Amino acid sequence: MRQFVVIGHDAPTTPEFALDDLTGGAGRLDVLCRCVTSAFVLSHTIRENVRVHLVLADAFTVTFAGSDLRRLNPDERSTAALIRGALERRDDAIGHQPVESSPGVSIRHRGLEPTLDATAGSVVHLHEAGTPVVDADPPADPVFVLSDHHDFTDEETATLADCADLRLRLGPRALHADHAITIAHNYLDTGGYRTY
Amino acid sequence: MRQFVVIGHDAPTTPEFALDDLTGGAGRLDVLCRCVTSAFVLSHTIRENVRVHLVLADAFTVTFAGSDLRRLNPDERSTAALIRGALERRDDAIGHQPVESSPGVSIRHRGLEPTLDATAGSVVHLHEAGTPVVDADPPADPVFVLSDHHDFTDEETATLADCADLRLRLGPRALHADHAITIAHNYLDTGGYRTY
Repeated sequence: MRQFVVIGHDAPTTPEFALDDLTGGAGRLDVLCRCVTSAFVLSHTIRENVRVHLVLADAFTVTFAGSDLRRLNPDERSTAALIRGALERRDDAIGHQPVESSPGVSIRHRGLEPTLDATAGSVVHLHEAGTPVVDADPPADPVFVLSDHHDFTDEETATLADCADLRLRLGPRALHADHAITIAHNYLDTGGYRTY
Repeated sequence: MRQFVVIGHDAPTTPEFALDDLTGGAGRLDVLCRCVTSAFVLSHTIRENVRVHLVLADAFTVTFAGSDLRRLNPDERSTAALIRGALERRDDAIGHQPVESSPGVSIRHRGLEPTLDATAGSVVHLHEAGTPVVDADPPADPVFVLSDHHDFTDEETATLADCADLRLRLGPRALHADHAITIAHNYLDTGGYRTY
């Protein structure tokens, strides 16, 4: 299982946003949508053994589970509609129980730290001071943690310092989160750029 | 210089399409928009030494030149607006002369083959039967040729067989074009996954 936790600092926590204004009124939800696409889509199929957790303003987490996922298209707008559908069910998410809003998409009351605590696997902090991936063996069951268009806050950095199993650097350039996900997949697909 | 030629088989050749319907009425223009984003954007900057040529239905080519590019945002909708702006100027593109519709974005009457003929560099056919990139030295001034959501046609494949300098395979999985661009950049950024 490969998992990606993406922090949306400005992301909406209510469904009152327009699909025509993802970069503005929807708090750069376009960034999170592209992360979902990068995590799942392959040519003519999706990666079933993947989960993505979008942490919305440290209040709600929307999880996409590849094994159950339906109706995912690669464009931003339709992915945003799935997230909006999850937010429409947020009041049904009682306590820490998730509510499934469409096949493979669920929402629960949960911020970053409990989301990380609940993921089973090796938490990987992607960081420009991390070990270059070409020098690292691919971890089993990695949980990559990424931020949207903002840097990690000091509090998030402290959380990651506590719980990350390793810090990796994907390349020499600082990338957008969705591009980092694409490269992380390729790194794992190729067995750490050694064989394929 | 890194260049990417992306073939849009169903792409519009007139500006009469809605930004709300990129996946439908605009002939999967969303795919081409994501390719532009992958080719240029880095965290907080763009890659200046890149050009992208979008071949629209083998009739027009819209070129994005990183050295002059302004007003590029990472979301699909705003990139589609730049392409639409280029198509609005298509009647001003006389013969083979380009017309610049916004800084760094130009359009000309030109299909795939003359576009490839006009690019200076090593034409790279990305193909699942190509040499794995981990076994190949990065080419100088590569011109990667990619297709949208459709496979290359027989005619395009024949054109590429004629003019491609090498065939490469980026990984073991068949990817979307925009993800392939992200990985091609990383391959080049890291010097063929050897150093960074």
